[in-house]
Amino acid sequence: MLKRYFPILDWGAGYGRETLANDLIAAVIVTIMLIPQSLAYALLAGLPPEVGLYASIAPLVLYGIFGTSRALAVGPVAVVSLMTAAAVGQFAAVGTPEYYTAALVLALLSGLMLLAMGLLRLGFLANFLSHPVISGFITASGILIATSQLKHVLGVDASGHNLYELGLSLVQALPDVSLPTLAIGAASTAFLFWVRKSLKPLLAGWGMRPRLADVCAKAGPVAAVAVTTLATFGLGLHEKGVAIVGDIPQGLPPLTLPTFELDLWGSLALSALLISIVGFVESVSVAQTLAAKKRQRIVPDQELIGLGAANIGAGLTGGYPVTGGFARSVVNFDAGAETPAAGILTAIGIGLATLLLTPLLFFLPKATLAATIIVAVLSLVDLGALKRTWAYSPSDFAAQAATILITLGFGVELGIIAGVGLSIAFHLFRTSRPHCAVVGQVPGTEHFRNIDRHEVVTDPEVFSIRVDESLYFPNARFLEDRIYDAVAADARIRHVVLMCPAVNFIDASALESLEAINHRLKDSGVTLHLTEVKGPVMDRLKRAHFLDELSGRVFLTQYDALAALNPELAHTTLAAPRRETAKPPAA
Amino acid sequence: MLKRYFPILDWGAGYGRETLANDLIAAVIVTIMLIPQSLAYALLAGLPPEVGLYASIAPLVLYGIFGTSRALAVGPVAVVSLMTAAAVGQFAAVGTPEYYTAALVLALLSGLMLLAMGLLRLGFLANFLSHPVISGFITASGILIATSQLKHVLGVDASGHNLYELGLSLVQALPDVSLPTLAIGAASTAFLFWVRKSLKPLLAGWGMRPRLADVCAKAGPVAAVAVTTLATFGLGLHEKGVAIVGDIPQGLPPLTLPTFELDLWGSLALSALLISIVGFVESVSVAQTLAAKKRQRIVPDQELIGLGAANIGAGLTGGYPVTGGFARSVVNFDAGAETPAAGILTAIGIGLATLLLTPLLFFLPKATLAATIIVAVLSLVDLGALKRTWAYSPSDFAAQAATILITLGFGVELGIIAGVGLSIAFHLFRTSRPHCAVVGQVPGTEHFRNIDRHEVVTDPEVFSIRVDESLYFPNARFLEDRIYDAVAADARIRHVVLMCPAVNFIDASALESLEAINHRLKDSGVTLHLTEVKGPVMDRLKRAHFLDELSGRVFLTQYDALAALNPELAHTTLAAPRRETAKPPAA
Repeated sequence: MLKRYFPILDWGAGYGRETLANDLIAAVIVTIMLIPQSLAYALLAGLPPEVGLYASIAPLVLYGIFGTSRALAVGPVAVVSLMTAAAVGQFAAVGTPEYYTAALVLALLSGLMLLAMGLLRLGFLANFLSHPVISGFITASGILIATSQLKHVLGVDASGHNLYELGLSLVQALPDVSLPTLAIGAASTAFLFWVRKSLKPLLAGWGMRPRLADVCAKAGPVAAVAVTTLATFGLGLHEKGVAIVGDIPQGLPPLTLPTFELDLWGSLALSALLISIVGFVESVSVAQTLAAKKRQRIVPDQELIGLGAANIGAGLTGGYPVTGGFARSVVNFDAGAETPAAGILTAIGIGLATLLLTPLLFFLPKATLAATIIVAVLSLVDLGALKRTWAYSPSDFAAQAATILITLGFGVELGIIAGVGLSIAFHLFRTSRPHCAVVGQVPGTEHFRNIDRHEVVTDPEVFSIRVDESLYFPNARFLEDRIYDAVAADARIRHVVLMCPAVNFIDASALESLEAINHRLKDSGVTLHLTEVKGPVMDRLKRAHFLDELSGRVFLTQYDALAALNPELAHTTLAAPRRETAKPPAA
Repeated sequence: MLKRYFPILDWGAGYGRETLANDLIAAVIVTIMLIPQSLAYALLAGLPPEVGLYASIAPLVLYGIFGTSRALAVGPVAVVSLMTAAAVGQFAAVGTPEYYTAALVLALLSGLMLLAMGLLRLGFLANFLSHPVISGFITASGILIATSQLKHVLGVDASGHNLYELGLSLVQALPDVSLPTLAIGAASTAFLFWVRKSLKPLLAGWGMRPRLADVCAKAGPVAAVAVTTLATFGLGLHEKGVAIVGDIPQGLPPLTLPTFELDLWGSLALSALLISIVGFVESVSVAQTLAAKKRQRIVPDQELIGLGAANIGAGLTGGYPVTGGFARSVVNFDAGAETPAAGILTAIGIGLATLLLTPLLFFLPKATLAATIIVAVLSLVDLGALKRTWAYSPSDFAAQAATILITLGFGVELGIIAGVGLSIAFHLFRTSRPHCAVVGQVPGTEHFRNIDRHEVVTDPEVFSIRVDESLYFPNARFLEDRIYDAVAADARIRHVVLMCPAVNFIDASALESLEAINHRLKDSGVTLHLTEVKGPVMDRLKRAHFLDELSGRVFLTQYDALAALNPELAHTTLAAPRRETAKPPAA
């Protein structure tokens, strides 16, 4: 029991020197990667750079205690940083104490929500973010983030929470471009793209082991930071208009007790919920991918607790919302991390950095940080997904395209809400018009198939219909209409047989529809029968009066029904020679 | 084509003298019933009595032209009148010109929405009002309506849009009770209950034909109106505190061009939508019940057009929202109505009444009208439905109970919205944790059954699981978790076989989950196979890359899969003697 809520007791029990050595190597590499990332994402969230570092200390330790993934690297990530900026930006201006306070409240609130969802085992709520919607959302977020960072590369002021506002304000600011900033920004961006695309094959070509080559390629941002910081310091570029990170307070994170203004908590609640769910979905999917490679398992509800603890920690120690990062976790895994201790060691590394390294970052140009963000997020943009989704499922495509367009046009929160709403609406619409087939007997067999697709034998007095969907309220009336239409159109019909092998569930609405169908058919002299009803569905039907009132019978198989209603036809057809019955396509 | 949109062209073509005679008799009976009803429901809606009459003229003619039901009697009904009062009451005080204007706009707007839904074939939207929700809503509305009418029976002032407000204001007004009003109100109510319950058997006992006895019993309200009006006139009760209907303008309905204030239209839009959907659902279900008795058919999308035209007519001729009424339509049907011409003749009857009869209604006590409403709506209250729903489906019960409580506690609009939202949420929750069974081979057969319910044979290297639900986003991750957990828990597993006979659909999210499962299993050396995939699902899968990347195969049957993966076991088990395999329940 205790081990369930404190996975550290599980893996910590057998912790040995060799595991420590492996975790330590992974931690060093992740720390080096995380320092520029955490500064950059704090910038993206509109927060002072040290907040990114603070968000990379306590949260990592707490996740290490409560999380179940052995390789997940928690901390600030791009999409959640953007969502933080969008949420907090509604209530305060960037740079004000109120802005920072709101970010702390957001982290705490999101942490409490995740924790509650974990304790109440509500992890399934994250399912409502369908794959096409989250993929569309991340693509659109990537585009928004990259655009929002262009101002740092150009050295101008610009802002906005959607693509139009951002674009307009960038175009208006173009006359103010700072050329030295642009030089640093453009060079960093180009360098980072080159590192991402070409460095690994180059190193591998020089004979370096692929894994090491990969880690070196991931260190590109560190090199860009070092070189541009030195260049700015050496050439005095900060006096020529290049914005620099400047003074970062030295020392460990402060304890922050977020404000308890109920108004602010209430206003941030929806944003916190969206951030929690998006963060959880991203984090769990990375954790599951990595766990599967070693045949380990992660426990989604405990992951909620782990991420909840991490975010509560962020809110109480000067950070902002965090979650598991994709690239960072892969590096952690590839570098050999074996347990969550790697994350705790990373936290110690970042702690040392806040104590010792921050003066070295004084001359770090913001344009370099922006470049690292742009290169990182553009890899998230996957417009090809639209094409793949379209090919497979037009309704999923519609939800995905709407998520992208609404996120770009109206911001992240509306985008994700619209995406979830649309995917639910499309699902309900689809099941409201289920696939139905009128069936007949395949000669020579006891099988029944769609009369439109196969050459089958039917009795004009028996109307047999198979519904390929659970019966529930969105399609309850559809079935009524379908049956009444058929019976009204053909006066010969004396029996309606509903074939239910694909009906997994019949809800109270569908039950009332069946009752109505039964009564109305009886009024017009037609009997209703059911066949091939599944066990659990039958169990439930027995709890209602429907079976007592049913004018016809419930048959185990469709053949049994025909054998009872028209024995002669059923046996003659069964005795007929079996042959290929698929109809040729119409000319 | 023209006949589709103008059903009158269809039934009008063969219209003869005999049909006219039948329709005329029905029309006379319905007219007599409708006069007190339309006055009473206008009172309930907070509108002057003549508005109820106006709403019973043009709308009936328009429905007669566009509607497809041969027996539906359109006009003011209780629930829609209550919803009108709730909607309009937010913007204006009862009795003001603004209140009436808003009711006209509401009718017009609701008519336009119904018309648009009909032309766009959106009738399926009404499906989202599940049976338990609409039944709970009508029960709660009945209670609210009856309570709201008590003030007229007591002769006091009281108001409120939920049960608490209404009850409190009634209790506070108790000291002001008007005894003569109470006498009339209580006597009328008691008389009407007696008529409803005992008159028909009594008349039948006297040898009257059942149908005629029924019609006489339905005329009870007319008798109550006549007697109490005469009593009030004769005893001068209106001077002793009995509120009377008073002056009703004589003459045909005025032409009313509703105001085009966009603000008002916008504010009423949601209410109009809810009224449209509730009205449509009620109306269609009555129409379908009656049509089925004569093996006729109604066309739901055309019904939307018919009801839309009726409401537009109501908005333009001084009425308020209307729909098909249950009791009235049954009377119309039983009285022998054969075509919608009966409705048009009823409209003529009501038109004559507005020209000639209104002076006779001057002394009609409001308490009598309230009594007719109370007796009518209490028959709508069906608290027993809660018990039946609970027995069949706890989640449907929860949606129904919530609808009742929220309607009573917070009013009609919130009640219906909460009901729809909850039924969708419960459905999504249910399908997010689908029924899954690990299966094994039944000895002596090619059948595979749940290992928990039957004594079956399994291969420890082959994990076979059957999912009894379509795979889509709410349960996509559930399947991943289920499979990873199983594979992580048992190191012997080499093959995972997913048995899909109950999978009617795989959406893009589930496809990505399957791809992820495939990749992750492959990473840990396990192959994934599918069996018994349905034709339409397979067609769709072929449009994706999944089948190319699948580590295992797609088998036609589960037996084929086992025969390929462990031929020896499959054949041995098949050759074993067949026996009863259901496991005895655990002690």
